Amino acid sequence: MKLVALAGGVGGAKLVHGLAKILPAEALTIVVNTGDDFEHLGLYICPDLDTVCYTLAGLANPVTGWGRVDESWQAIESMAQLGGPSWFRLGDKDLGTHLERTRRLRAGEPLSKITRDFCHAWGIRHTVLPMSDDPIATIVETVEHGELPFQEYFVHLRCEPTVRGFQFAGVEKARPAPGVPEAIEAADAVVFCPSNPWVSIDPILAVAGLKSGSGAATPVVAVSPIIGGKAVKGPAAKMYTELGIQPSALAVAEHYQNLLTGFVLDQIDADLEESIQNLNLQTMVTDTIMKTLADRRRLAEDVLNFITNLN
Amino acid sequence: MKLVALAGGVGGAKLVHGLAKILPAEALTIVVNTGDDFEHLGLYICPDLDTVCYTLAGLANPVTGWGRVDESWQAIESMAQLGGPSWFRLGDKDLGTHLERTRRLRAGEPLSKITRDFCHAWGIRHTVLPMSDDPIATIVETVEHGELPFQEYFVHLRCEPTVRGFQFAGVEKARPAPGVPEAIEAADAVVFCPSNPWVSIDPILAVAGLKSGSGAATPVVAVSPIIGGKAVKGPAAKMYTELGIQPSALAVAEHYQNLLTGFVLDQIDADLEESIQNLNLQTMVTDTIMKTLADRRRLAEDVLNFITNLN
Repeated sequence: MKLVALAGGVGGAKLVHGLAKILPAEALTIVVNTGDDFEHLGLYICPDLDTVCYTLAGLANPVTGWGRVDESWQAIESMAQLGGPSWFRLGDKDLGTHLERTRRLRAGEPLSKITRDFCHAWGIRHTVLPMSDDPIATIVETVEHGELPFQEYFVHLRCEPTVRGFQFAGVEKARPAPGVPEAIEAADAVVFCPSNPWVSIDPILAVAGLKSGSGAATPVVAVSPIIGGKAVKGPAAKMYTELGIQPSALAVAEHYQNLLTGFVLDQIDADLEESIQNLNLQTMVTDTIMKTLADRRRLAEDVLNFITNLN
Repeated sequence: MKLVALAGGVGGAKLVHGLAKILPAEALTIVVNTGDDFEHLGLYICPDLDTVCYTLAGLANPVTGWGRVDESWQAIESMAQLGGPSWFRLGDKDLGTHLERTRRLRAGEPLSKITRDFCHAWGIRHTVLPMSDDPIATIVETVEHGELPFQEYFVHLRCEPTVRGFQFAGVEKARPAPGVPEAIEAADAVVFCPSNPWVSIDPILAVAGLKSGSGAATPVVAVSPIIGGKAVKGPAAKMYTELGIQPSALAVAEHYQNLLTGFVLDQIDADLEESIQNLNLQTMVTDTIMKTLADRRRLAEDVLNFITNLN
């Protein structure tokens, strides 16, 4: 089975980590959101790509889920002493990634090629692709501050502003990164990881598309990032509420509805299963919370079994 | 007494540190070479300014004389793992300086203002000025590689190429930084620190000038960076040899001859004193090697006494 997984940050990284533990290298392509990418201190930073890669490489901080394990903070502390901005916590090891990526981007290399080389250097065997080599910026439309670049909303303002919509600036001109359409075309199934639908999966879909043709032919399965009405991490539930939608696994299923074949929801939401089935979706109820490495692998196995048994 | 000291890297930093231990804040202005400055990994790096400031602030690595004490190297090692260039050893704390300086330069602030704020943050009370806010690049003309940017020659090629001359690119358009002409004008004496004449002091003189008028009115004293025919650190002696001049305190005195009132040489070179006096210079022979903090202060006292007793 050839699988394409669409992923954002921590939640997506955990599931693709589980999938990568099971599937051989050639059977898994991970397409990662780059709408959160931003330039900070002259560095081109790709939070989701780095989280996915650090996780797959075993370099991720096991406590936070993002950033590097055994990280130090000397550069940012030295900068803060000089009055510099320290709201985006750049670890020293992480800085090395941003410096080298930025150097190569400035030299004209595409992000997909740089990512491929980084994966090789980090010992990642599965294919990790940015959704696009072209700039696409997720803009959060807020009540209090108008349009905010994603990291400004997410890190600097701690997701406090009230959301009323999203834009993916640049998406109309952007093309999917080389390898993305081919991987989707060749896939036996596509998995939407338990990432934020609004700002992690939607930007990927906006540029990489799931053409109605392949959507019809290829099973597409989503794992709900909303569990018991809450997001495990991040502002997904808050976003649903502020957009006038009660956050729930059902809301996520409705969000993706036309693209999906199947939907994976947590056992805590088992009472929503029938409503989701009424959307003409096949369902699987399982434990979707990934606290341990074993959890990641177990959920990945469940998802693969679900795909195999889809009608 | 109001003093202006012209300084390059480690040797200059040691003497100005000694002077700063003796002179009150308003009595010492340090004008620092920026000809070695370069952009690396998108960061604007000022090696001599940083060495002088780190030394004055007590933040310098006491073993190397440059870089930061208690430094770590996580970013550059992380970058090297990705195949990035690691020939310029950027420490993590040091990176914080470069990131913040670069951020402010890109925002349009002049280097002199940024340096003033950094000095304030680091608790440096004396005035440290870059020689210019305009870009001036020391170019080393070499036999083997033609024209090399200074850091390429100095760090990357380890001073191995044979030197046949120097250029200070941009100097004809550059102006001295605000405060430099005023400090020289107001100075009771100017000191050339024991820095490389060719690539540390000459670039400062090329942009900041010592106008013949003030040169005539204000005592100017140089401390020889060549001791026993050798440089304490760096390529100064090798440069003299490759340019066909036997490296010696006498050669340094001849180099600066028309600008100087007095010359300070090491006791190991006492046999050169008469030849230097024959250049119509007043001389002082003392121990000019600065191994300890006490050495820095003692040499600074000697230099101040020498200036006070000049005819």
